[in-house]
Amino acid sequence: MMDLAKAVLAGDRRALARLLTAVENERDGVNTGLQILYPHTGHAWIIGLTGAPGTGKSSLVTELAKAYRAQGETVAILAVDPTSPFTGGAILGDRIRMRDLSGDKGVFIRSMATRGSLGGLARATRDVIRVLDAAGFDRVMVETVGAGQSEVDIVRAAYTTIVIEAPGLGDDVQAIKAGILEIADVLVVNKADRPGVDSTVRGLKTMLELGHPASREQMTSHHGQKMVVESSVAHNDGFWLPPVIRTVATEGEGIEELVAAIEAHRKYLSDAGRMHQLEQQHVEMELVDRVRDELVKQLFSVLPADTLRDVVNQVQSRSLDPQTAVNQLLAFQQVNVAK
Amino acid sequence: MMDLAKAVLAGDRRALARLLTAVENERDGVNTGLQILYPHTGHAWIIGLTGAPGTGKSSLVTELAKAYRAQGETVAILAVDPTSPFTGGAILGDRIRMRDLSGDKGVFIRSMATRGSLGGLARATRDVIRVLDAAGFDRVMVETVGAGQSEVDIVRAAYTTIVIEAPGLGDDVQAIKAGILEIADVLVVNKADRPGVDSTVRGLKTMLELGHPASREQMTSHHGQKMVVESSVAHNDGFWLPPVIRTVATEGEGIEELVAAIEAHRKYLSDAGRMHQLEQQHVEMELVDRVRDELVKQLFSVLPADTLRDVVNQVQSRSLDPQTAVNQLLAFQQVNVAK
Repeated sequence: MMDLAKAVLAGDRRALARLLTAVENERDGVNTGLQILYPHTGHAWIIGLTGAPGTGKSSLVTELAKAYRAQGETVAILAVDPTSPFTGGAILGDRIRMRDLSGDKGVFIRSMATRGSLGGLARATRDVIRVLDAAGFDRVMVETVGAGQSEVDIVRAAYTTIVIEAPGLGDDVQAIKAGILEIADVLVVNKADRPGVDSTVRGLKTMLELGHPASREQMTSHHGQKMVVESSVAHNDGFWLPPVIRTVATEGEGIEELVAAIEAHRKYLSDAGRMHQLEQQHVEMELVDRVRDELVKQLFSVLPADTLRDVVNQVQSRSLDPQTAVNQLLAFQQVNVAK
Repeated sequence: MMDLAKAVLAGDRRALARLLTAVENERDGVNTGLQILYPHTGHAWIIGLTGAPGTGKSSLVTELAKAYRAQGETVAILAVDPTSPFTGGAILGDRIRMRDLSGDKGVFIRSMATRGSLGGLARATRDVIRVLDAAGFDRVMVETVGAGQSEVDIVRAAYTTIVIEAPGLGDDVQAIKAGILEIADVLVVNKADRPGVDSTVRGLKTMLELGHPASREQMTSHHGQKMVVESSVAHNDGFWLPPVIRTVATEGEGIEELVAAIEAHRKYLSDAGRMHQLEQQHVEMELVDRVRDELVKQLFSVLPADTLRDVVNQVQSRSLDPQTAVNQLLAFQQVNVAK
């Protein structure tokens, strides 16, 4: 694993692919590799891209990658597929559009699917991004489909989050936008040659202005301490108003403007310690997530074989309520640890 | 709280609304109320409904509710909105279509949005469903938008899960379907008067047959023990093949067939101990989730004020890697508990 990590640092692409597989499968010893790589992270600019089905994300990612390559920058693309939580099997979206990029050694493409373990995808995504960062790519683009937890996970790892919309995606779209707008640093209306594009852009701008600049609230984080969770520091001070960019990715239109917007956001974050603050937020969220997962693993490792089953049976038969059951399970750990 | 719970059991709708608010806000003492209600649960048939934006979920839920009312059954509708993880503010989808139901005392409609706390929505959803169940409703319908964690949460609470599709929602839809099909007990192609409906239905049927009956794998759950997570027992033994129903909800078309399909699935589950097994799976997943949340809460309650901040700073400056940081935080709890 140590050799593998060193090969990755030396630019070996096969070693990179192997290490990523080890990370995804949580192989033994993979932490050693991650530990060696960690000090070498912090170079890549991490870009998250998300949007509802039908917005043309893959085409956009491809065009963006081409634009970065034209500037001489290396690019890693991570396509995260959160759609199959039950089998662990990955049926990944249409990667065919990305074939334009094949054969270019400055581009590395990787697909990843959730294995169904809660929090597993978020953690693996972070670790994979770190490996790609340490491997020296200038840009790491993380693409995901969906409108739920996966976006939140991306925001917690990316520096610049791009939300992609398209005209005419149906009447529930407003509801989705409401939540997703808050995570956007840059908004893209792709397929801008379609009817309805003006009203989509107008709608987005109105919602952005309504939500701007700082009507946001503090929220209590899941571990009970006060923590401000922000989509990006940009929203709260210094007044970063997410730009709305029109693109027709299949024609390459608007890509230049998008590259410029990402660069502007990057410059914005480098001012006034904002990047430092954003990284701290990311680290805090990650540590809390991982501590949570470890704690439950520890508890279940000390639980006698039939305890969980017994408690489950009692709750199922309504002779025990869930909260009391939780308390019984928790009591177990403390006794054990105190020994 | 005890009085409130008793009033809910007696059919008091105001008390019901107040208790639900208490549950959503995790008010002090709410567990007492839930404990009183818990033995009275198990009556309602819990139906989960999910689908991508633009599929017409709200219309379908409304029509389904009307059909149940016509049969003399009482209905509770819970609209779960997972779209705003950052503000805690709820911008709920279009509930206007549900106005047809207003004034009917046999119908109770409730909207809920995530408060941003990880796992908070899943837990609150389960508790709210239980309260509605104990309040005596014959059918509890839980509706959610999105294509991610929210569906998984619904499956973990519902007995019959309905996945709604519609023709012509864009080219990424295939990717979404792949994951979502696995959670479906009944598939609905709504807006079946639109062009492309035949190909949507055909596509779904092909995917269903490919995935049938039991090519599913065991997966290792997040707490490290082997656990079979299934969309429903129906998929794995006894050969429940999810039917594909065409509807035009706005015209009331296909609703009768949908009601019949839900009833068939219900009968299927009541055979051969399947319902018992499904409930046990639900209970197990819930207990594990709640134990996890409690454990992290406990750890952070004993952590000295600046510990987390210090560790975060070291990770951010790359002088400490994340895994070692996690270990440092975990070590803390064990020392403390052992005292």
